Amino acid sequence: MTELKNDRFIRALLRQPVDKTPVWIMRQAGRYLPEYRATRQKAGNFLNLCKTPELACEVTLQPLKRFDLDAAILFSDILTIPDAMGLGLFFTEGEGPQFKNPIRTEKDIKNLHVPDPETELKYVMDTVRLLKYELDGSVPLIGFSGSPWTLACYMIQGGGSKDFNIAKSLMFREPKLMQQLLSVITQSVLAYLDAQIEAGAQTVMLFDTWGGLLTTRDYLDFSLHYMQQVIEGLKKHSSIPKIIFTKLGSNWLESIAQSGCDAVGLDWTIDINQARARIGDQVALQGNMDPQLLIASPERIQQEVATILKAYGHGTGHIFNLGHGITPEIPPEHVAVMVNAVHELSQEYHG
Amino acid sequence: MTELKNDRFIRALLRQPVDKTPVWIMRQAGRYLPEYRATRQKAGNFLNLCKTPELACEVTLQPLKRFDLDAAILFSDILTIPDAMGLGLFFTEGEGPQFKNPIRTEKDIKNLHVPDPETELKYVMDTVRLLKYELDGSVPLIGFSGSPWTLACYMIQGGGSKDFNIAKSLMFREPKLMQQLLSVITQSVLAYLDAQIEAGAQTVMLFDTWGGLLTTRDYLDFSLHYMQQVIEGLKKHSSIPKIIFTKLGSNWLESIAQSGCDAVGLDWTIDINQARARIGDQVALQGNMDPQLLIASPERIQQEVATILKAYGHGTGHIFNLGHGITPEIPPEHVAVMVNAVHELSQEYHG
Repeated sequence: MTELKNDRFIRALLRQPVDKTPVWIMRQAGRYLPEYRATRQKAGNFLNLCKTPELACEVTLQPLKRFDLDAAILFSDILTIPDAMGLGLFFTEGEGPQFKNPIRTEKDIKNLHVPDPETELKYVMDTVRLLKYELDGSVPLIGFSGSPWTLACYMIQGGGSKDFNIAKSLMFREPKLMQQLLSVITQSVLAYLDAQIEAGAQTVMLFDTWGGLLTTRDYLDFSLHYMQQVIEGLKKHSSIPKIIFTKLGSNWLESIAQSGCDAVGLDWTIDINQARARIGDQVALQGNMDPQLLIASPERIQQEVATILKAYGHGTGHIFNLGHGITPEIPPEHVAVMVNAVHELSQEYHG
Repeated sequence: MTELKNDRFIRALLRQPVDKTPVWIMRQAGRYLPEYRATRQKAGNFLNLCKTPELACEVTLQPLKRFDLDAAILFSDILTIPDAMGLGLFFTEGEGPQFKNPIRTEKDIKNLHVPDPETELKYVMDTVRLLKYELDGSVPLIGFSGSPWTLACYMIQGGGSKDFNIAKSLMFREPKLMQQLLSVITQSVLAYLDAQIEAGAQTVMLFDTWGGLLTTRDYLDFSLHYMQQVIEGLKKHSSIPKIIFTKLGSNWLESIAQSGCDAVGLDWTIDINQARARIGDQVALQGNMDPQLLIASPERIQQEVATILKAYGHGTGHIFNLGHGITPEIPPEHVAVMVNAVHELSQEYHG
């Protein structure tokens, strides 16, 4: 492994002492940056951008040039796996992701295969390798995947949804079929993250965007169970920290912390001091500023950063982040205010 | 007050002994019922349906004819107050509610008035009176309002939204203006619910659909604070139980329970046994089956009802409901299965 010039992020994930609280931002390479919009235009569309390693690498690095961030995250989409399975991912302007061939029947599920990352998702692995070269050890690179449950939601529904009623209908009416689907996806996610680590990712994160739609019983059986299998399968990469982020997962923090992951992502609806009291002796915590707060004045942003740092308190184990992805209307200058405030104001809590 | 023939719902709200767990369903008068769709067609559109007391009364009573429900809920929209304030509520097919004149500036806020319920919202009060007459004491009638925060979200945003970014932007950038707006809305909600009670409502419920978008700090300051003022203002109606339902509010159950309300509505993401352990000695609990589960087989529905009843356990203080409104694709026969299962299976937990 290349020696890291800035290993603050990795150290905090492993709950080792740091000089300042590390910070990165979900969707830090994104539409709020004019240079991102320019590269996306050059790519023609979002999916081309994901599938062209040079351009995906370019946008991954853009926020690192502007802000003093402590980690880079692979630029990609969470739906690359179902796309490689043949579901035909596409995006229409102003709409979320959609699939040409959603999964609806037993036959659809039986026909699914586990994509080979180095051939069918080669563009992702090439992006990781290129990024590893370009980053040159400046900051760690985060690889990621959608969680099995979240991928299943989109694959069955055929696109985004308020309640993923078609996906939940399959779960409630045909739980065994749903488990078969989740098993194939789990194997695919495991192979995908394993390959990202082999290609150079130094941390991996599971994005469970839709686990929060479930009851406790269903969350444990249909979402966390499969994420745990992924974490278990990645155990051989013992030096690679693993992060689980279930949006709206605050009811289940204790169970998530026991999954074998190193860190738990928090959305903004839970107090980070409460989260630390509940699971801070087992895992690091990542989060959790309200993404919309970045629209406020610089003073208000600094105040919120101070509140969250104080709520977490002294010692390591905190990675500052938003509680969800940054949104397109945020002024980039406000992001700089946040990042700098984290580094400046956090020093009193360390060393 | 008319003597109630079935007072199970009121008794459970006040945590008095009952023979069976009472049950009603959020949005029980709704599009899943063919007779509702027929009346709506007769009304021309949704807003006419709300504004015509005879038709609003008709659809309120429809589910009670089909199912053995323990309460009726006034058929209306949560956005009647802003409509009466002059914002111009309208609905377009397939879209959520929208306002012609959203609130964006200090001047917009200063110009708002508190609508007089008996003149400007007379159609609602007439519906309540008509319902009271038609119900003739068979089951209690629930009156309701959107919470001040939830109404503010729609009034500023101008319609539905994933994140209500315009509303949250006002909160973060101009908190004092937001408080002024919330104060006017709070006075309006209080007057509205007070008038509903005077007209015959025997329970009132605040629907805080969007409180769950907030951090703990902001939830307490911008949502719960104002709901508490409403509850406080309704104290003179000491025999009328008051319910607060914050969707995705499981982080704040203790604070909600201390607001002075008699019952707390739960969405399906929290275990009702955990909720009871946290606040069951202070308030009744209403909920919390996943609305999507009604798409499953009758056996699966019965199983889920049994699981929730067992999770709540012995004794009174539980009102069975869904964790959110019923959706249009649910077969009415499945609702009957749920309602009957609640009454049958709950008997072992009472008496």
